[in-house]
Amino acid sequence: MNILIKGAEVLLPDMSVKPQDIMVQDDKITALGDLQENFIPDKIINAREMLAIPGLVNAHTHASMTLLRSYADDMALEDWLSQKIWPIEDAMREDDLYWGAALAAVEMIKSGTTAFADMYGPYMREVAKVVAESGLRGVLARGIVAVAPGCMEKLADSVSIYKEYHGAAEGRITVMLSPHSLYTCPPDFIEKLAAEAGKIGAEVHIHMAETITETENCLKEYGKRPFPHVEATGLFAQGTLAAHCVHLDDEDFRIIKKYNIRVAHCPGSNMKLGSGVAPVPRMLKENICVGLGTDGASSNNNLDMLEEVRLVALLHKVHDLDPLAVSAAEAIKMGTQGGAEAVGLQDVGKIAVGYKADIVLISRKNAPWHPRHNPLSQLVYSGSSNDVDTVLVNGQILMEGRRLTTLDEEKIYFEAERCVERLLRHS
Amino acid sequence: MNILIKGAEVLLPDMSVKPQDIMVQDDKITALGDLQENFIPDKIINAREMLAIPGLVNAHTHASMTLLRSYADDMALEDWLSQKIWPIEDAMREDDLYWGAALAAVEMIKSGTTAFADMYGPYMREVAKVVAESGLRGVLARGIVAVAPGCMEKLADSVSIYKEYHGAAEGRITVMLSPHSLYTCPPDFIEKLAAEAGKIGAEVHIHMAETITETENCLKEYGKRPFPHVEATGLFAQGTLAAHCVHLDDEDFRIIKKYNIRVAHCPGSNMKLGSGVAPVPRMLKENICVGLGTDGASSNNNLDMLEEVRLVALLHKVHDLDPLAVSAAEAIKMGTQGGAEAVGLQDVGKIAVGYKADIVLISRKNAPWHPRHNPLSQLVYSGSSNDVDTVLVNGQILMEGRRLTTLDEEKIYFEAERCVERLLRHS
Repeated sequence: MNILIKGAEVLLPDMSVKPQDIMVQDDKITALGDLQENFIPDKIINAREMLAIPGLVNAHTHASMTLLRSYADDMALEDWLSQKIWPIEDAMREDDLYWGAALAAVEMIKSGTTAFADMYGPYMREVAKVVAESGLRGVLARGIVAVAPGCMEKLADSVSIYKEYHGAAEGRITVMLSPHSLYTCPPDFIEKLAAEAGKIGAEVHIHMAETITETENCLKEYGKRPFPHVEATGLFAQGTLAAHCVHLDDEDFRIIKKYNIRVAHCPGSNMKLGSGVAPVPRMLKENICVGLGTDGASSNNNLDMLEEVRLVALLHKVHDLDPLAVSAAEAIKMGTQGGAEAVGLQDVGKIAVGYKADIVLISRKNAPWHPRHNPLSQLVYSGSSNDVDTVLVNGQILMEGRRLTTLDEEKIYFEAERCVERLLRHS
Repeated sequence: MNILIKGAEVLLPDMSVKPQDIMVQDDKITALGDLQENFIPDKIINAREMLAIPGLVNAHTHASMTLLRSYADDMALEDWLSQKIWPIEDAMREDDLYWGAALAAVEMIKSGTTAFADMYGPYMREVAKVVAESGLRGVLARGIVAVAPGCMEKLADSVSIYKEYHGAAEGRITVMLSPHSLYTCPPDFIEKLAAEAGKIGAEVHIHMAETITETENCLKEYGKRPFPHVEATGLFAQGTLAAHCVHLDDEDFRIIKKYNIRVAHCPGSNMKLGSGVAPVPRMLKENICVGLGTDGASSNNNLDMLEEVRLVALLHKVHDLDPLAVSAAEAIKMGTQGGAEAVGLQDVGKIAVGYKADIVLISRKNAPWHPRHNPLSQLVYSGSSNDVDTVLVNGQILMEGRRLTTLDEEKIYFEAERCVERLLRHS
């Protein structure tokens, strides 16, 4: 289908904002600027008073954990996991993962997220189903907790999922392998996973250096900090998406740069769990690829990527006592281009000719968008994800005028509540 | 008018959430729970699927600065003030303050704020006009920069404003006196202001201990830190609302407690300007009254109090590396009860019998409110100010179903743009 997006102010790859018409053919952006003579639109979207930005990329989440949103908050980390999260997760069935991911998909589309990197389990085929049906882009990984029984079966299943789904749903689904973390996976298992990933050419998604406790325990148990410890397993030879990366020293930076490890920075989760502040300004200075993630909805508690964009701009300013630490342009770049690169997507994350048509139109009619000084700055510091009006992924319209086109919002809320009622009875 | 709010989950003063009908007579809440026999409602608001909370209180802002929203961001503080903010403020006329405050009023009502403490100038009668017309509650102070010419005339004018407006608009307007800060007001002027305030019985609103530079310069110039320096002027003998209070030592805590100084904590502004992290958990532990403020829209860049509530809950967790540092309940309490007390309002800030009917109804229909685990936690960590559906102040409905009843939104956007066009030509 040919779509003409008319009259928007467009956030361009160099972070300038200019009025441009956008021409979409099938899954791609084929022209920007003046209407091409041979372009006959099947549909015209009037985007006057709107800002067009590349779709936001959630570089680290656990989508189905929306079912646990605000189930347990304001607790010490260990109590939270052992008394609340793990028992209820143990009771989860296929349909819980499906409806949890569907609830996540509703929330993501309505807040302008067009792609997400998901690490969860065990039933990742259910999440793949949601990606296929919703029209979103998903980078899926079954997160393996290898200290639990059956880790080799889980690894074999992960490989099967890779073979079945990598490139599926018109290329909207890609697959990674995932050792959950170094504290849930012994090094010999990470080695085995790395070998399998190497054989099939899969990239990997892992939690790294999230808390001080993780670093201290790793030093105690293995005599090394997390990055050198995992480096020795060979995991980083694959393309690596490393979530969190909060506690880093110079040697860790050296390893991240050596292997081109891409970082998913999760400011909201790091704040809520009291994990610490990742050295993002230094990462940017050293040209490390940084995307942004929400983490799961039980430690955030939403999947609002514009909130993460705002938090990354605010948190580092106050942490470094420097109002220039992370600019609005750098923040939104991490939420779009940086995220796409971090999760391994090609031709995604920019509004540019030849790129996939993953486009979000944001209404500028509400009070936080007045007066009209600087739309980029207003996007990052003032507006909200509720201003997202229209969302395209791969050239398909997933929401227009805040109405979803692929998902039945009310049914999903209903079924998600029903899943939770059952889980609470059985956990 | 008698209003019955039916079927809401209500946030009660002890921070529990319970289903309760709310009965409003004229400006007050007269009953909670079962419908009283003699209560005949003129209007019934169906609040099923909604959470009712006390109106949010913005304890420190500069409302008319909405005109400068995103006019200048991501700059060093001195450049920002001297090159951008001050020149354009110098060009401001009466109508700029009026339309700027009107834009702020639209934004505040739509995001659930029912009262605000404003410090700005010179034309505070224009802000009073907006408060009277909008139906909001305003605690107004002409902020005096005494290093500029004419400070004694400004003080006399402040006293006149107090006499004209304190208790005006059915009691919705109260007035404070305001020396802007110790770095813009020499101590002899603060002394004079304190004496005037004492004479008329006015409370005071001042910026205190916002940046390290302020503390360093105060030590250099006066040989004392900000709190002991201002204590010596006698200012704190009045009831005092002190904005920011970021950089405090034990002696400062002693002074704050001795004079019952109330703090307006502004986490969003402190983050964006890189000012530092105020010791809020310690303030709460020592029973200091803490409210929350947005500061002006040029350093935030919105007036969204639910965002401040979320930030206060997140910022201190990560700063103290403690997920229990500030709980959701403490955060929303600061945004409501704490704020009302901080800005000196009686019978405001709680949904309780005898209190003013300043009530905000929040829709729970959007994705971030599902599933239904814990509405208080979802309010603080997950939902957004766009979920605010209905707003009452003093028993008057200012918004219903997101439609404003007292203000003409489109006209205000139009006039605010027009003010800015003129200001940009003349600054």
